[in-house]
Amino acid sequence: MKNKTSFKGSVLLNPVPVVIVSSKNKKGISNVFTVAWTGTICTEPPMLSISIRPERLSYDFISETMEFIVNIPSRSLTWETDYCGVRSGRLHNKIEEMKFDMIPGSHVNVDYINQCPVNIECRVTKIIKLGSHDIFLAEVLQTHIKNEIIDENGKFCFEKANLISYCHGEYFPLSEAPIGKFGYSVVKSPKIIKEYKEKYGKFPLLSKKIKQK
Amino acid sequence: MKNKTSFKGSVLLNPVPVVIVSSKNKKGISNVFTVAWTGTICTEPPMLSISIRPERLSYDFISETMEFIVNIPSRSLTWETDYCGVRSGRLHNKIEEMKFDMIPGSHVNVDYINQCPVNIECRVTKIIKLGSHDIFLAEVLQTHIKNEIIDENGKFCFEKANLISYCHGEYFPLSEAPIGKFGYSVVKSPKIIKEYKEKYGKFPLLSKKIKQK
Repeated sequence: MKNKTSFKGSVLLNPVPVVIVSSKNKKGISNVFTVAWTGTICTEPPMLSISIRPERLSYDFISETMEFIVNIPSRSLTWETDYCGVRSGRLHNKIEEMKFDMIPGSHVNVDYINQCPVNIECRVTKIIKLGSHDIFLAEVLQTHIKNEIIDENGKFCFEKANLISYCHGEYFPLSEAPIGKFGYSVVKSPKIIKEYKEKYGKFPLLSKKIKQK
Repeated sequence: MKNKTSFKGSVLLNPVPVVIVSSKNKKGISNVFTVAWTGTICTEPPMLSISIRPERLSYDFISETMEFIVNIPSRSLTWETDYCGVRSGRLHNKIEEMKFDMIPGSHVNVDYINQCPVNIECRVTKIIKLGSHDIFLAEVLQTHIKNEIIDENGKFCFEKANLISYCHGEYFPLSEAPIGKFGYSVVKSPKIIKEYKEKYGKFPLLSKKIKQK
């Protein structure tokens, strides 16, 4: 029996990030709104994308100035994150309502939300029309990170940032403990294997390399 | 004193999804590789993007056929997910090594990984050169979902899928309990407010609407 049910196209990519995007129009009015349709798209140059419905106020602001800031919320800002996604800047001053502490960006003429542990300043390089949403490709110019999540060696300790994910209409916290690390499946040093087993739990080691035909 | 430290551009968008992408070249050879640079980019038509380094074998396969399948791993496949990201299909038959059970897609000539709870069949509409990675924009044609995560009313219960996130080089499980739901910040019905408070914990209710200037 088939163990799966099939559905016609809808995007069930989960979980995805959920971020608050700030922008400022040419008159100097700021707005914030929530975006889950975002992702990293390139490592060098560092780039990310956000997709926006053309009817959103932020669509006008960002296409006017080609600048925005991605503010990554922590768990304590889940409620604010939701609110900024369901209320429009045309009717609400969400920045004042949420009591966001706005700090001017250093590379773009946009303010960032100081309460968010990470803020990413971006400049749009291309807007592509898709349908309900248009995708904005953007280069990352500068990032600001809360000092508390940087350790004494300069390492970013994201597990201390209490970040959240968006999964099929709900917000989920990331658990504090990671379960693996990039490249952990191929380590060979017995010392590191032991360390990873302690940190990430038991994991299998491949016994047999099978060549591609 | 400034509570943040600033860094020149690097993409610190976190957490992001981590998925295994399958493809098949014109000769009928299948390959799988891991992608974290992915995201939903449009709701209607349903679209997602994946970014790929041009030197990857999957880059050749997918640009040849313009088709791929996104396979979303659950927690029990974390090790396999890592392995498929660090080993190349030029040297390894990762599908055999990982003992993946491959099922032919219904809308594309690509097989999906049956062990993954969600599989998303995609057709590429555009490839855009960026730098270290090129972005592949793709339309979602069909999705397959494990019966166990669909309840008797047809609702998808993603909290039962044990999905994972990728955050700054580490894999994290999503906790089982959600902490909010899209739109929960603006519900007005006392009954629903009570229900949400029980489900998601205490949340503040806005006292004052502030008009945008």
